[in-house]
Amino acid sequence: MRKKVVFYHAGCKVCVSAEQQLAVALDPAKFDVEVVNFADAPGRIDEAEKAGVVSVPAFVIGGTPFHINFGASMADLKGGA
Amino acid sequence: MRKKVVFYHAGCKVCVSAEQQLAVALDPAKFDVEVVNFADAPGRIDEAEKAGVVSVPAFVIGGTPFHINFGASMADLKGGA
Repeated sequence: MRKKVVFYHAGCKVCVSAEQQLAVALDPAKFDVEVVNFADAPGRIDEAEKAGVVSVPAFVIGGTPFHINFGASMADLKGGA
Repeated sequence: MRKKVVFYHAGCKVCVSAEQQLAVALDPAKFDVEVVNFADAPGRIDEAEKAGVVSVPAFVIGGTPFHINFGASMADLKGGA
């Protein structure tokens, strides 16, 4: 079974770079990658925070958050929502 | 041709987690991943810094650095070398 991976981002420049270079790089034989843009799905911010995401872009793989560079903090995203 | 990716780390706990979850996750059909541990290869710190790496663990993909969470700064690594 493929492992579920969620890539959270907010459409920022750093996010797009990470998506184009890393999110698409994961082995499709092993991973099922869901891309979540908070601009389209603000209702998923809570789920991301519960998984430990503090900034975007970030992956959550097997429950562990991996923050990629720094685009925006979750606090900034909530402040702007 | 597979794209060259270098994963730089320093053997720290954050580094090991990123290696086990992300470095091994890249599609082997598209990427040739080299893992560089500065503890074994301190001579490669310079090359990583030139690519823009400021902390480990980090990937360099197509010349772009992607820092994953935060394990240690390059400055710390050099101070401890």
